[in-house]
Amino acid sequence: MNPIIETILNHRSIRKFEDQPLTKEQIHTIVACASSASTSSNIQAYSIIGVTDNEKKRQLAELAGNQSYVEDNGHFLVFCADLHRHEISLEMESAEGVESLESTEKFMVALIDAALASQNAAIAAESMGLGICYIGGIRNHLDKVSEILKVPKRVIPLFGMAIGYPSSNSYKKPRLPLAHIYHEEEYEQDVEKFKSELQAYNKELSQYYLERTNGKRQDTWTDQMARMLESPKRMYMKEFIQKKGYDIR
Amino acid sequence: MNPIIETILNHRSIRKFEDQPLTKEQIHTIVACASSASTSSNIQAYSIIGVTDNEKKRQLAELAGNQSYVEDNGHFLVFCADLHRHEISLEMESAEGVESLESTEKFMVALIDAALASQNAAIAAESMGLGICYIGGIRNHLDKVSEILKVPKRVIPLFGMAIGYPSSNSYKKPRLPLAHIYHEEEYEQDVEKFKSELQAYNKELSQYYLERTNGKRQDTWTDQMARMLESPKRMYMKEFIQKKGYDIR
Repeated sequence: MNPIIETILNHRSIRKFEDQPLTKEQIHTIVACASSASTSSNIQAYSIIGVTDNEKKRQLAELAGNQSYVEDNGHFLVFCADLHRHEISLEMESAEGVESLESTEKFMVALIDAALASQNAAIAAESMGLGICYIGGIRNHLDKVSEILKVPKRVIPLFGMAIGYPSSNSYKKPRLPLAHIYHEEEYEQDVEKFKSELQAYNKELSQYYLERTNGKRQDTWTDQMARMLESPKRMYMKEFIQKKGYDIR
Repeated sequence: MNPIIETILNHRSIRKFEDQPLTKEQIHTIVACASSASTSSNIQAYSIIGVTDNEKKRQLAELAGNQSYVEDNGHFLVFCADLHRHEISLEMESAEGVESLESTEKFMVALIDAALASQNAAIAAESMGLGICYIGGIRNHLDKVSEILKVPKRVIPLFGMAIGYPSSNSYKKPRLPLAHIYHEEEYEQDVEKFKSELQAYNKELSQYYLERTNGKRQDTWTDQMARMLESPKRMYMKEFIQKKGYDIR
């Protein structure tokens, strides 16, 4: 196993950081790595906003559901879907392309581009001995987050990333069985096999929680997912992203 | 610079591979790395389908716009947004959650999850001396791709990834200036600075093409983007993903 594979397999989210800001050089390296990720036809439909201002971080932490690690970390990045520079390109070239910009296809491209870049950033940070945690919580209030970050139309903050020197260890949570995630030649057609894989994972995850809570936490994955899905969340999203000029056609 | 950063910064798409299939162990490692990526609240809303069957690969290559490297490679992966197992979880737990499953928010989560996993796979493969190329072209005909891969409702093939031993070198294309991708504290408000960064990139990319085509290729980035956006592409997408149970509410 090479050290890169080792770093990747060793990933766990870090939610407590030392009070030590990243250096400019570290941030530069992380951003350079992000920008080296693949991008659909070189469209580069994303931007990254780095936040160090304490008051801004405090506000973002609150909006993300009072997650202290959004405020207390070595650096905080926000990854955005971004077709703003493409709209400016159209203007610079006196071309028409709003129909494309507003298509569901381009929305997907921008999301995928931003996520590829962010995962490069995550691995780069981890390779430097830093820890990271993705923050989907900023999607709780994208209107306010967008105001704080002053993003123009056609820019949507997707998720944050807290980065810093880990000040506490965390466990690596077991994931779905690889045979369940990975299908050969075609998607699994045997529903019973599919369900029994989920049941096996339920047992494994349940055991993981029992051991880490001295027998207090009892839930399984399918139960967690059912509870999560029973309460629809962020149902303003469709309207919001369409207002921002995405996913309309 | 550590070897992980070096691997990440050295990325370029590879479109010509040796005729040597990946071993089962290599595939297993790549998938394990994919599944170690961060995932929103452990939702794991993606699947990977590995295709080795020659006839299937030939069909996918044709659907992707006659891209030979979809057929000729060491292994071919398709990354899918997947809420099928979540629908089964609801059934297993006798819970109601269709409104959540069909929300734009969960569509975004599934896309981001799949992309994070895929970028881990990409870096893992590159760390093993393999090359990769993302294949967005499978989105040209998602109905037919879905048939070939026999994916159920709530599963959307997003992109492919050709992997293999590189048989030819390729260049690293310059990307947008880091200052243009990366914003400090808030999004860039100075439109003139923003435009002049795009113009600087136009010059750099133009020079790159001129050098690599003996002066034949002349275009710039804003011109490429304008040409691309002038012809709306894959405009069936919105209807397709909604038919598949995504992005409805």
